[in-house]
Amino acid sequence: MSLRSTGASPERRAVLIGLIGEGVTPSLTPPMHEREGARHGMPYVYRTIDLDPAEATPDAVEGLLASAQRLGFDGLNITHPIKQTILPLLDELSPAARRVGAVNTVVFDGGRRIGHNTDVTGFGQAFDEAIGAGPHGTVVLVGAGGAGAAVATALAERDIAELVIVDLDARRAGELASAVDAASRPSVRAAAPDALAAELAAADGVVNATPFGMAAHPGTAFDPALLEPRLWVADIVYRPVETALLAEAAARGCRVMPGLGMAMGQAADAFEIFTGETADRRAMLADLRDLVAAEAAAASADSRRLHRREEEQ
Amino acid sequence: MSLRSTGASPERRAVLIGLIGEGVTPSLTPPMHEREGARHGMPYVYRTIDLDPAEATPDAVEGLLASAQRLGFDGLNITHPIKQTILPLLDELSPAARRVGAVNTVVFDGGRRIGHNTDVTGFGQAFDEAIGAGPHGTVVLVGAGGAGAAVATALAERDIAELVIVDLDARRAGELASAVDAASRPSVRAAAPDALAAELAAADGVVNATPFGMAAHPGTAFDPALLEPRLWVADIVYRPVETALLAEAAARGCRVMPGLGMAMGQAADAFEIFTGETADRRAMLADLRDLVAAEAAAASADSRRLHRREEEQ
Repeated sequence: MSLRSTGASPERRAVLIGLIGEGVTPSLTPPMHEREGARHGMPYVYRTIDLDPAEATPDAVEGLLASAQRLGFDGLNITHPIKQTILPLLDELSPAARRVGAVNTVVFDGGRRIGHNTDVTGFGQAFDEAIGAGPHGTVVLVGAGGAGAAVATALAERDIAELVIVDLDARRAGELASAVDAASRPSVRAAAPDALAAELAAADGVVNATPFGMAAHPGTAFDPALLEPRLWVADIVYRPVETALLAEAAARGCRVMPGLGMAMGQAADAFEIFTGETADRRAMLADLRDLVAAEAAAASADSRRLHRREEEQ
Repeated sequence: MSLRSTGASPERRAVLIGLIGEGVTPSLTPPMHEREGARHGMPYVYRTIDLDPAEATPDAVEGLLASAQRLGFDGLNITHPIKQTILPLLDELSPAARRVGAVNTVVFDGGRRIGHNTDVTGFGQAFDEAIGAGPHGTVVLVGAGGAGAAVATALAERDIAELVIVDLDARRAGELASAVDAASRPSVRAAAPDALAAELAAADGVVNATPFGMAAHPGTAFDPALLEPRLWVADIVYRPVETALLAEAAARGCRVMPGLGMAMGQAADAFEIFTGETADRRAMLADLRDLVAAEAAAASADSRRLHRREEEQ
């Protein structure tokens, strides 16, 4: 007997999602999901579950997953530092999650836990939209951390002749190149940071997957003088929308791909996995742009207040 | 820095509530809350957490409370069999919860757990609306279980000369009479079941707080021939809306108070505690009426299907 489907004014299914990770309280993903849920007429609640560093263990994460299932969550987003910790706790992995070896989205399907990676699919879709189908020649990826792995995994499925991975940590670059290479269409190799100028001189595009460009990591990961107009330049940083790297690239006449597309794409893909409905990506992108602008305005007002207070003292 | 309050399209605060108890999956309280939340333009998700009998221990309930707080619930409704189990796990009790010694609503207020009892306030408000301010003379309460305790507690605050409590379990009736008596305006006493005819002959109103009248407990708690037109007759059963007792009472010309008002009132009072906003009680009552009717229609369709299947065999 299904009560909800027989009611005089049948309701939309309510959706309950959480985001688990360190420092997630100010994330813009919850309002993006809740606004998209509202556009679909769904009661949609998205909660942040801020992880204490001591809770980043398999046992503690298992406890949180079990609690979320017990209390009726439909799924979770997962972020730093437990995107890999969570792997052995899941029943099934999507192809993208298996390829990258990390999960940012878990959906509960009748007691089963299915892991997805919408960082990979989100970057891939944003890339296709911003840069096009290719062929793309040689692409340089700067940054071989978790975001770099998602970017490399997405690029490895695309029409790229060669993917060159650069990281200050040469071992990390080499490991990512090997991991991606195994199942990859393009040839993939690591290069040393001091070879970056030569690599960029021979490349068609470059992706920044380091945190440089965020407010907390000002500047750029490499010298923007290396950017020739021939290159397209992608950034995964999206707060601010226009990073120092993208501003320099645009000033030099390069085609640019802001990080906003990937950030929206990971949320839109997760929304579709959680709800089975089609996300309004144009509206979600506009929402994210608004949310980033509002956050920047609030931060700037805070800093003006602080400045005034200092002057008064 | 408050992001939500500075956004270009500021959103309503999302609300997340759960209901913990045995057999709560088919409860009509979740859709009542979610519909009222939608009327307020709030993302509002209300989940049922069906308790295994083995989980009705203080330790297991503590685990569920801690999980709900950790995962961002705003509050919980609590029902059978843990309305008293939960008492020592709370930081504070409302006056109604303290008087009745049971909690059906917990709100999380910055880590503190505050217990309320909206069965008491819900019945009280429904009584004032249906029966009026009084004076009410003598009222007979049939049934001294959890619901009876809530009814007795609400009646003890009203303008009633005498409250007489009857239960098949004489000890339980006596204990409730003593518990209510302590802080009560009316005089309260227990009476034996075989004295019910005499008690009703001298009474002004009677409340059924037993499960008789529900589909699973057909019939009435006492012989309806005892109902004289002078009596008002209240029932706490609301599925169906018109119980056998209320039908007999109406046929005899008695004023009746259906259980729907208390059921709606407990939900409306909890909604107000959870959200700080004023519930639309008229709309919630109409919703509940629809939901009960839809449930009855679905049950009847199920039973027709079953009947056909039996005929086909």
